[in-house]
Amino acid sequence: MIAERSKPAVVLVSGGLDSATTLALAIEGGFVVHALSVDYGQRHALELERAAEVAASCGAASHRTARCDLSFFSGSALTDPATPVPRGRDEHQIGSEIPVTYVPARNTILLSLALGWAEVLGAHDLFIGANAVDYSGYPDCREEYLREFERLATLATRAGVEGATFRVHAPLLSMTKAKIVQEAVRLGVDLARTLSCYEPGDDGRPCGECDACRLRARGFREAGLEDPAL
Amino acid sequence: MIAERSKPAVVLVSGGLDSATTLALAIEGGFVVHALSVDYGQRHALELERAAEVAASCGAASHRTARCDLSFFSGSALTDPATPVPRGRDEHQIGSEIPVTYVPARNTILLSLALGWAEVLGAHDLFIGANAVDYSGYPDCREEYLREFERLATLATRAGVEGATFRVHAPLLSMTKAKIVQEAVRLGVDLARTLSCYEPGDDGRPCGECDACRLRARGFREAGLEDPAL
Repeated sequence: MIAERSKPAVVLVSGGLDSATTLALAIEGGFVVHALSVDYGQRHALELERAAEVAASCGAASHRTARCDLSFFSGSALTDPATPVPRGRDEHQIGSEIPVTYVPARNTILLSLALGWAEVLGAHDLFIGANAVDYSGYPDCREEYLREFERLATLATRAGVEGATFRVHAPLLSMTKAKIVQEAVRLGVDLARTLSCYEPGDDGRPCGECDACRLRARGFREAGLEDPAL
Repeated sequence: MIAERSKPAVVLVSGGLDSATTLALAIEGGFVVHALSVDYGQRHALELERAAEVAASCGAASHRTARCDLSFFSGSALTDPATPVPRGRDEHQIGSEIPVTYVPARNTILLSLALGWAEVLGAHDLFIGANAVDYSGYPDCREEYLREFERLATLATRAGVEGATFRVHAPLLSMTKAKIVQEAVRLGVDLARTLSCYEPGDDGRPCGECDACRLRARGFREAGLEDPAL
């Protein structure tokens, strides 16, 4: 990434490992980072609290939470209480098909909200923790999708009409989970604060059984590190 | 529009004249219409009630309201209570520049939400009441923007990966307001229920002074018709 001092950027931050690492990479790249979390009717609010903590501890210039309730279209275990989150799946099953935790059009909605805020901030750079390795079946985690969103953003905004070009940065796109863990450690991300679990206990502890917990555990294992959040 | 019997479509419905006419055109075109309203922190909830009435009276198969609060980025008079809605502007001033009632990335956010629901419904057709005549300065009301969103939607979704092509229909795009009024009358839209005003009174009556009221009044005047909502 080319360091571009004092350029503003909007970084999507969920409170998990991937987006915290993305945020730290944006700051390392010299951007003034405005962190955006989206409350889309997730099962737990703790993730959003962690997002705010992560943004603050990494040095974001500001943090906002947009409430955008996606439960009006059921069809995802992350927004529909009637659909159970899968537990105890083999790691090789994860990502081989689109799971019930998939939120339809999720990255398009998240990037659209980031674009709206970017337009107000005068930012032309958006960061998202999309990853094509763990979730190879997700259409909106592909390079060509992200390049298409850049073209859309440039056409959709006054800044674009006036000549600006939008960039969607997805620095984790082709990293393994182990590599993401190593990057997070290198950048000094406070991993104990990050929460990847889809359905943590009332005490805030990760369940250890959902797909997100399993992928994270494999990442730490392959990186030869202990997860400080456990 | 080619009549395509029993194909589902998602139609964005605000409760105003334009989206009601768009909905009626979608039904005339043979689509099974699923109407989507988005509560993005508008100043009044009445618009959303009218949207539900309009959807029902036009014969929509279903209607949902998505709550997506955009007030986290201030910068629009429609979502930020600190910014007054302009009143009493000359009709020729309206649309000559991007006004304070512009919501950043609005159509991108609305279409993204529609896309999420479409993915759940198995629909590949989205309808939006965008108009390039009254608001020629809006980048996201241009034909090329809408075509770009189609490409994005096709890349963003499993249906697209599997070979479906998404269409964004904006049948009012190049219609004058007078033509839209005439179409609404021809299609039997219950215009008395539609509400275009940005800031109606507590009794639900339009203010008559905001840009939306002025454009609507000109449309009826040029069509030689009385507005039944007054």
